[in-house]
Amino acid sequence: MEDGFTPSPRSRVKRFGEFGHYDRKTLFSVLDAAMFATIGYVIDGQAYATPTIFWREGATLHWHGSSASRMIRAHGEGQDVCVTVMLVDGLVLARSPFNHSINYRSVMAFGRTRPVTDRAAKVAILDRFVRRYFPGRLETLRQTTEQELKATGLIAMEIEEASAKIAASGPTDEPGDSDYDCWAGIIPLAQILGSAIPADDLRPGIAFPRSLEPYGDGRRLDGVVGALVPANGS
Amino acid sequence: MEDGFTPSPRSRVKRFGEFGHYDRKTLFSVLDAAMFATIGYVIDGQAYATPTIFWREGATLHWHGSSASRMIRAHGEGQDVCVTVMLVDGLVLARSPFNHSINYRSVMAFGRTRPVTDRAAKVAILDRFVRRYFPGRLETLRQTTEQELKATGLIAMEIEEASAKIAASGPTDEPGDSDYDCWAGIIPLAQILGSAIPADDLRPGIAFPRSLEPYGDGRRLDGVVGALVPANGS
Repeated sequence: MEDGFTPSPRSRVKRFGEFGHYDRKTLFSVLDAAMFATIGYVIDGQAYATPTIFWREGATLHWHGSSASRMIRAHGEGQDVCVTVMLVDGLVLARSPFNHSINYRSVMAFGRTRPVTDRAAKVAILDRFVRRYFPGRLETLRQTTEQELKATGLIAMEIEEASAKIAASGPTDEPGDSDYDCWAGIIPLAQILGSAIPADDLRPGIAFPRSLEPYGDGRRLDGVVGALVPANGS
Repeated sequence: MEDGFTPSPRSRVKRFGEFGHYDRKTLFSVLDAAMFATIGYVIDGQAYATPTIFWREGATLHWHGSSASRMIRAHGEGQDVCVTVMLVDGLVLARSPFNHSINYRSVMAFGRTRPVTDRAAKVAILDRFVRRYFPGRLETLRQTTEQELKATGLIAMEIEEASAKIAASGPTDEPGDSDYDCWAGIIPLAQILGSAIPADDLRPGIAFPRSLEPYGDGRRLDGVVGALVPANGS
């Protein structure tokens, strides 16, 4: 599909299939609203799930870490992995235990790891990583040293297949259950930014910069990072 | 260790080892502050990472799902899995790209799946699941039917080994980097509960109950679910 991913049994949403999405627009909108993912991978038959910051460029997902870390070392050329994103939007309280549920937006993306080792490509992608989350900040920072660059492992994964699952509704109770004398509804939930805490050694006179204003106190992280994507042209 | 888990290479924290914890008190406090985990597992060599609600009883973790779901069917007797919890507490902005980091509390717990099929045990554990998150609510609900019970798959995993990793500090810059004319510090982040939305068919006169007051507007989910554990005696 030009505008989507064709699901195989690996990525097809089996339960509540009506919640499943395979089109790029939906998949990318969930991925772009998330700053964190969990990478599922296998070492010697043992499953690992490692949480990490990630970012998307087209149909490629990126994550990074210490070159010496277990995850980065395990993500050599062509390792099959699963990148999972989960944004929890609310607790859904019904009139029976069975019908309680969660409102969420999730993505499971499958593909093979490709370590980015070419120096120029690595620098360019890591620069775009900083720009993707903090536009305008890179130019104010001390530049990365060669030693730091070597200490950083960078992974790319072209999405081979992916599915999104979105649940966003009030409780669905069985006929007659709403007669129970019991509160039902949604308790919303979101990752919310707090009031910025300056570093202990911040020099006097350096204010919280305009470029960081999207990350203001009380904002939703999903809204902030979702809105920054078009601004950065990814 | 009576009060902790002995790490093997599988669970030992390799990077920033000083952030690693293996004692039950620390591990359980992070697990108990989380409502959601990602389960890493393997089917035919392919890694999967599935997000889900979970709960702890002693050194046992539980999760559930549709009996027909891929995850529950894959979690037959004795499957090696990895249960990962990640609570993001803040974005740490330093004066170099390399020293940017995240404040977080994470746990990786390893063990083998054990489907709970005994009817009485299943009913008891699922009842404790509702009580663990919503004390006082179970008694107000329509009871689970036999059909619903059969449609629910329940998994237990005794923790064989586990590690917690906790990062909670301001930016650590290299000597001299604080001379840069650049804001540095922490932008806090937390999962925050919103204002409850009653179900469309909620009968007039049913108010948001006292038992749900911990889930009040503006509360932190980690604080709420962490505080509910001792109240439920787990």
